[in-house]
Amino acid sequence: MITHISPLGSMDLLSQLEVDMLKRTASSDLYRLYRNCSLAVLNSGSQTDSSKELLARYQDFEINVLRRERGVKLELVNPPGEAFVDGRLIRSLQANLFAVLRDILFVSGQIVSAGHHQRLNLQNPAHITNLVFSIMRNARGLHVGEAPNMIVCWGGHSINETEYLYARNVGSQLGLRELNICTGCGPGAMEAPMKGAAVGHAQQRYKEGRFIGMTEPSIIAAEPPNPLVNELIIMPDIEKRLEAFVRIGHGIIIFPGGVGTAEELLYLLGIMMNPENKNQVLPLILTGPGISADYFRVLDEFIVSTLGEQARRYYTIIIDDAAEVARRMKKAMPEVKENRRNTGDAYSFNWSLRIAPDLQHPFDPTHENMANLNLHRDQPAELLASALRRAFSGIVSGNVKENGIRLIEQYGPYRLHGDPAIMKRMDTLLQGFVAQHRMKLPGSAYIPCYEICI
Amino acid sequence: MITHISPLGSMDLLSQLEVDMLKRTASSDLYRLYRNCSLAVLNSGSQTDSSKELLARYQDFEINVLRRERGVKLELVNPPGEAFVDGRLIRSLQANLFAVLRDILFVSGQIVSAGHHQRLNLQNPAHITNLVFSIMRNARGLHVGEAPNMIVCWGGHSINETEYLYARNVGSQLGLRELNICTGCGPGAMEAPMKGAAVGHAQQRYKEGRFIGMTEPSIIAAEPPNPLVNELIIMPDIEKRLEAFVRIGHGIIIFPGGVGTAEELLYLLGIMMNPENKNQVLPLILTGPGISADYFRVLDEFIVSTLGEQARRYYTIIIDDAAEVARRMKKAMPEVKENRRNTGDAYSFNWSLRIAPDLQHPFDPTHENMANLNLHRDQPAELLASALRRAFSGIVSGNVKENGIRLIEQYGPYRLHGDPAIMKRMDTLLQGFVAQHRMKLPGSAYIPCYEICI
Amino acid sequence: MITHISPLGSMDLLSQLEVDMLKRTASSDLYRLYRNCSLAVLNSGSQTDSSKELLARYQDFEINVLRRERGVKLELVNPPGEAFVDGRLIRSLQANLFAVLRDILFVSGQIVSAGHHQRLNLQNPAHITNLVFSIMRNARGLHVGEAPNMIVCWGGHSINETEYLYARNVGSQLGLRELNICTGCGPGAMEAPMKGAAVGHAQQRYKEGRFIGMTEPSIIAAEPPNPLVNELIIMPDIEKRLEAFVRIGHGIIIFPGGVGTAEELLYLLGIMMNPENKNQVLPLILTGPGISADYFRVLDEFIVSTLGEQARRYYTIIIDDAAEVARRMKKAMPEVKENRRNTGDAYSFNWSLRIAPDLQHPFDPTHENMANLNLHRDQPAELLASALRRAFSGIVSGNVKENGIRLIEQYGPYRLHGDPAIMKRMDTLLQGFVAQHRMKLPGSAYIPCYEICI
Amino acid sequence: MITHISPLGSMDLLSQLEVDMLKRTASSDLYRLYRNCSLAVLNSGSQTDSSKELLARYQDFEINVLRRERGVKLELVNPPGEAFVDGRLIRSLQANLFAVLRDILFVSGQIVSAGHHQRLNLQNPAHITNLVFSIMRNARGLHVGEAPNMIVCWGGHSINETEYLYARNVGSQLGLRELNICTGCGPGAMEAPMKGAAVGHAQQRYKEGRFIGMTEPSIIAAEPPNPLVNELIIMPDIEKRLEAFVRIGHGIIIFPGGVGTAEELLYLLGIMMNPENKNQVLPLILTGPGISADYFRVLDEFIVSTLGEQARRYYTIIIDDAAEVARRMKKAMPEVKENRRNTGDAYSFNWSLRIAPDLQHPFDPTHENMANLNLHRDQPAELLASALRRAFSGIVSGNVKENGIRLIEQYGPYRLHGDPAIMKRMDTLLQGFVAQHRMKLPGSAYIPCYEICI
Repeated sequence: MITHISPLGSMDLLSQLEVDMLKRTASSDLYRLYRNCSLAVLNSGSQTDSSKELLARYQDFEINVLRRERGVKLELVNPPGEAFVDGRLIRSLQANLFAVLRDILFVSGQIVSAGHHQRLNLQNPAHITNLVFSIMRNARGLHVGEAPNMIVCWGGHSINETEYLYARNVGSQLGLRELNICTGCGPGAMEAPMKGAAVGHAQQRYKEGRFIGMTEPSIIAAEPPNPLVNELIIMPDIEKRLEAFVRIGHGIIIFPGGVGTAEELLYLLGIMMNPENKNQVLPLILTGPGISADYFRVLDEFIVSTLGEQARRYYTIIIDDAAEVARRMKKAMPEVKENRRNTGDAYSFNWSLRIAPDLQHPFDPTHENMANLNLHRDQPAELLASALRRAFSGIVSGNVKENGIRLIEQYGPYRLHGDPAIMKRMDTLLQGFVAQHRMKLPGSAYIPCYEICI
Repeated sequence: MITHISPLGSMDLLSQLEVDMLKRTASSDLYRLYRNCSLAVLNSGSQTDSSKELLARYQDFEINVLRRERGVKLELVNPPGEAFVDGRLIRSLQANLFAVLRDILFVSGQIVSAGHHQRLNLQNPAHITNLVFSIMRNARGLHVGEAPNMIVCWGGHSINETEYLYARNVGSQLGLRELNICTGCGPGAMEAPMKGAAVGHAQQRYKEGRFIGMTEPSIIAAEPPNPLVNELIIMPDIEKRLEAFVRIGHGIIIFPGGVGTAEELLYLLGIMMNPENKNQVLPLILTGPGISADYFRVLDEFIVSTLGEQARRYYTIIIDDAAEVARRMKKAMPEVKENRRNTGDAYSFNWSLRIAPDLQHPFDPTHENMANLNLHRDQPAELLASALRRAFSGIVSGNVKENGIRLIEQYGPYRLHGDPAIMKRMDTLLQGFVAQHRMKLPGSAYIPCYEICI
Repeated sequence: MITHISPLGSMDLLSQLEVDMLKRTASSDLYRLYRNCSLAVLNSGSQTDSSKELLARYQDFEINVLRRERGVKLELVNPPGEAFVDGRLIRSLQANLFAVLRDILFVSGQIVSAGHHQRLNLQNPAHITNLVFSIMRNARGLHVGEAPNMIVCWGGHSINETEYLYARNVGSQLGLRELNICTGCGPGAMEAPMKGAAVGHAQQRYKEGRFIGMTEPSIIAAEPPNPLVNELIIMPDIEKRLEAFVRIGHGIIIFPGGVGTAEELLYLLGIMMNPENKNQVLPLILTGPGISADYFRVLDEFIVSTLGEQARRYYTIIIDDAAEVARRMKKAMPEVKENRRNTGDAYSFNWSLRIAPDLQHPFDPTHENMANLNLHRDQPAELLASALRRAFSGIVSGNVKENGIRLIEQYGPYRLHGDPAIMKRMDTLLQGFVAQHRMKLPGSAYIPCYEICI
Repeated sequence: MITHISPLGSMDLLSQLEVDMLKRTASSDLYRLYRNCSLAVLNSGSQTDSSKELLARYQDFEINVLRRERGVKLELVNPPGEAFVDGRLIRSLQANLFAVLRDILFVSGQIVSAGHHQRLNLQNPAHITNLVFSIMRNARGLHVGEAPNMIVCWGGHSINETEYLYARNVGSQLGLRELNICTGCGPGAMEAPMKGAAVGHAQQRYKEGRFIGMTEPSIIAAEPPNPLVNELIIMPDIEKRLEAFVRIGHGIIIFPGGVGTAEELLYLLGIMMNPENKNQVLPLILTGPGISADYFRVLDEFIVSTLGEQARRYYTIIIDDAAEVARRMKKAMPEVKENRRNTGDAYSFNWSLRIAPDLQHPFDPTHENMANLNLHRDQPAELLASALRRAFSGIVSGNVKENGIRLIEQYGPYRLHGDPAIMKRMDTLLQGFVAQHRMKLPGSAYIPCYEICI
């Protein structure tokens, strides 16, 4: 079956040179990635969420970029039938399909082209931030003149039923206060707040509800956008996705999750504890139902014992009180607005937030990089937060990621140089996650993949 | 606690004479009814759905109509706290509160005033239809120029989980086809299709979704509008509510329900089998999941055996195929449009549908009225349908309604004059409902409240 | 030639009873009036502005109200060709045609029907005001929530070129300040401010420009709405039209005109000098180009010498400074808003303005009524203003109106009882108008139609 | 006086790199041009239309690009007071000021940057067309999905009163048919059709009226946009401006003008007579009042005698019938739409129109270039049209342009190689223009600046 699809949204006016560039890009190395992301989007409607199963099931799927006098068209060969209603592609999928085209091919094309000419230097922090801005703007995700109302929700995608219902309830309370939601766009804690907010918006007759799904190529296939996402944005990689979250969010809520969630918290503390950000206003709430109290208690203890009591100034833990979470966020919005106005910053994009290079750049957990991490207390807290995030990231990799496991098998455990107390706390934290079934581990007993060198 | 609420929607421009009339009306006999309906609306958010419990819980609730230079305001004394978010009334509740004011006080005021001057004669079929139209228009429920897309969904409010999920699925399929939903506005089969359609609309980026809750004063307290209802309309009584359904609906879906649902089907057949309606286009689908197949089989057999094979021309039974139900409705819409255009009728209100007086007027099941019903086959099918509806209505009353039970205790069983075969079928049908737990009965064994006199 | 026209705007949803009433009304005595007003509207495009010539030219024009299932249609027989572009009626004319239907037939029908049942008592001031409100609301002319911005412009319709350009310039300055215009909807000073404001609005990219033409049946034929009028409203008579002007206007500008303009000023002073209106905020500016300075000087002297120095508190005279006129109006709008908010009054309709019965009711200038006027200084200024308005109105009638001239021929000059100084001033004022060619008089020399009885 | 102005429209979301680029550009050689264009825009409101006088009057005017966290701001030093109303810049001027920033600095910045990297090759026809498209898109001047309705109007800016009123009348008739207007944005025939169309749109309640002023830097100072222009677009040079006109116009009307107008007609014929454009649909009407009949007769004779009878297939001459002009344009729109649909071309931009390089590139009238023109009949008509356009352009330059006059003084008359009959016709045509006072010439008698070499 072959279908031709017209653009919906931002790709409706391309010049012929741009279409040519797209066609060229589409036949390049990127094609596999582009094709798989498109397939993931088309499959949103169905129930499969294993990306392998998906790819296996639609081996004969193809997507081609066609050049028409009036612009671009997409040709779908053997697309999933669930994407169509009475032969017509569901409009949100149509929009998302062009979001993939826009963010994977078009943006890549521009980066390559710009990079080639040394205009865009991705080592330069200002250039990275500008790229994040450009992708957001190109996706029409920045609304001039809209008062702060975007709440970023983070948390695990495999949370339990009680946590799911709680996250939905928080979403409902946010929606009743006419706040919008941005998440990582998958299931679980990514989906629940949107579901709740949609009903809250309906109750307030709020028509402008925005549900941003912020994803990146390596994740979208496994976690396709849920049906409520009405703005799909695909950042080039995990670090730019994180940067996008903190620059467009006006408040951040962290639901229970696994290690990834802990890493995200460290990322945020690495930013917020930076003295250059001391005037920033970015409310951060950690919340969950009663049964999640332990999770946050352990996390909180870890933070305080490593980064010190002052780290607590940057977050609030609220257990089992969805309305209170939303109330605080709502109340903080005028402060965010005031702060942006005072600094001359945009409401829709936080230009003045300082993100240090070690948070902006990807970390590759080789044995050498891990050994070089400075995990001692004799440094500014924000640097320790950033180093911890990296150590953490490496340990997770050594435990569960294919690449990391191979490295550990080959070279033995990572050798970390740091404060033993800190290392011990990390151990405890990870053990806690294991005990709470928040971490998938290869074997049953947890064997540390690192050792401490004092 | 006392709060003052400004109008939202249609009551925002009242003249001072109109406000005076409202104030007068509000202190009349109607006050109790008005106050209780308002309380029901304010309570939508909470979980109580027993109207008695509700009234008991908020005995000190009061609502007063205030006159301001610029129009009307409402004063709420001790309203349910759940109706407020951070001290502000939820906007859908605010709108619904003014819908109650509009449809109970304002419309009543106008009927009384008009009736007093013999301009509006509620015995005259044309006047009844005009009243239904006027109430709909006054509620801004008639959209000029909108193509046919309103699907009325009927069915029980205490359906089981499987039936609920199926009805939601049908709603989702309707929503994916950009069709709107009108129901009786309570829970169960009244709520499920709206829930589904809201997601379907979101998937199609359809912004104009309409969810009409069509209720009447005696029901709203027990079945307050669910959060998705974005147009609440309160008809003066059950017959005008039924007439409103069939005049504004462009298609009707019947989900499984109890005896009430069967009655509604007979009401529809009484209309559709009327030769004056032979050119009407009004698709009617009876549908449910696999487990409901029996329910519809029994109902179908009853219809055919009493009204004849030709009755089947007016409905289709579809079991366990939500997409097919929606597909058929969608496909019928251009036919409805064509038909309205040909007859010069409005898209938003079916003026030309003929509703015979015995369907338009309430039926009071006294022993005399029941004895006078003509339940023989020697009459036009539509008259038999109408008579059956009344017999049915009486039997249900004799079985379960307070008033009917008292009558039976006092005068013995109703004496029906009709064809024995028909009576037997009725017996079977009711027994079936009993067996399927679709009927709440006072005792455990079903004792007929009628006897047949041949 | 016969054409059928569908409703545009507010008449698109009529019940069948309402259409029947319209048809009945349309065959009544009103038909002539209705037909002539419709013809006047259809003729707006052409250049004829003599109403007699118009009626003579289109003697075979007919307009019929048709009943369709879906509502009303109009049948035009032999309409002016200029009303059509490529066979399609110009949309503003279509809208205005239904404004005539609405305000002449529909409103009349309702008044008759309501009056018949004693619900609407047109002797009762509150009822008159409610009628004015109802007609405005029915015409959708009251916009809830819009901040004060409606400037009423009065002045002659046969002003000279310099005055016309000045009035257009004032309009332009008002438009640049995003103010809207309401006039009597004819040519001259009725048209010029709208022309100017349309360009001013365009320069400010202001899309919501409102140009209300407020007319009444006896005037519309002679002064059809100019092409810029986008809301045509027809009040039942001259007094209700005046009341509508002062209740919906947030500021009033008086351009040079003839005696009619002087009368309007007296009407306003009769209202504003009423102590019950002492807290009203209604800016009033008299303005014209340099050459009009004399006109306003004479008028001002007359006012001061009759009503006293305090009358000047209610108006400002600005000569040859269009920007200043607009600037003052703009500056006064927040004060108007504040005042309405403080008194709880609507922004769109000034309910609390007190209009005394002698200003609300029509004055019939019989010899008896004129003789009974109290034109002495020993009374409150607002009563004298009101009496002067009536004396004035009678003198004008005796000078130029068919009916008045006949009365004078029959019974001799009016005998006025009043202060001789006041009478002398009136003489001077009228002589001044004659000298400035602002008054069409039957003969060349002005012979007073009244005498003073001390 | 110093004022800071925020962006309105398309420049409201700039990245910090882009603002930096703007600031750099603004301090470059471009600054003079940018500053003068901005001044021209700010002066639109006033009456001066001599660009020299303007520049002299506001010598101390400066405009600076400021970088703010949230984007760009403009600082105006000593701007013309007429641009402000009560201290606030008129919004259309604000928008136009940012159009200048966008099209002069931003586009220039991008061209320079792109050209530098060899991505944009302005010798390549496809690249030129893509640049025109990109500028139009960047100005949000291409509306996806809008049916063809854009009428380009050409003609002199110093036409006489009768011609002006006729052009306004044509505009009114176009507006009544809901067609939009694109002109060169100055006075005269550039302004009149917009004035008329604005009233026509108002009469049809057409809210989407577009009035595109398409200009270029060397013209805007002398011919600032009139107040009705609601989309100002500045193309880099005259050829791109011409290309923009023919690619976004769906029909073209030529009013009387001077030699420039004749040149434009030749430009169009050079395109339309190209066999590659034989399937193009682009209605072209030459029109004027009765007194302009001669102008068009002479022009028509010249065309036919040089390019042959078949040239007449591409244009229609209509004298003194404004309604007929508009009627034909309106009637042609569905054909344009059909044609675009058939060729898969965009409605908003005619990609498939072929513009030969000699029409796309500027012509420099040196003696050598003039001598090399092939003005013989033994070539395809479209090439002759194009050569004639150039010859014409050179002769005009030799007659009236500073540079051309100097060249003629230095080297004597141009020597043209061509058909004597053609040359003679050209003579006649120019003499006719002189006689009709359509050409400003240095001396009183016309002395040809060329001679024919057979």
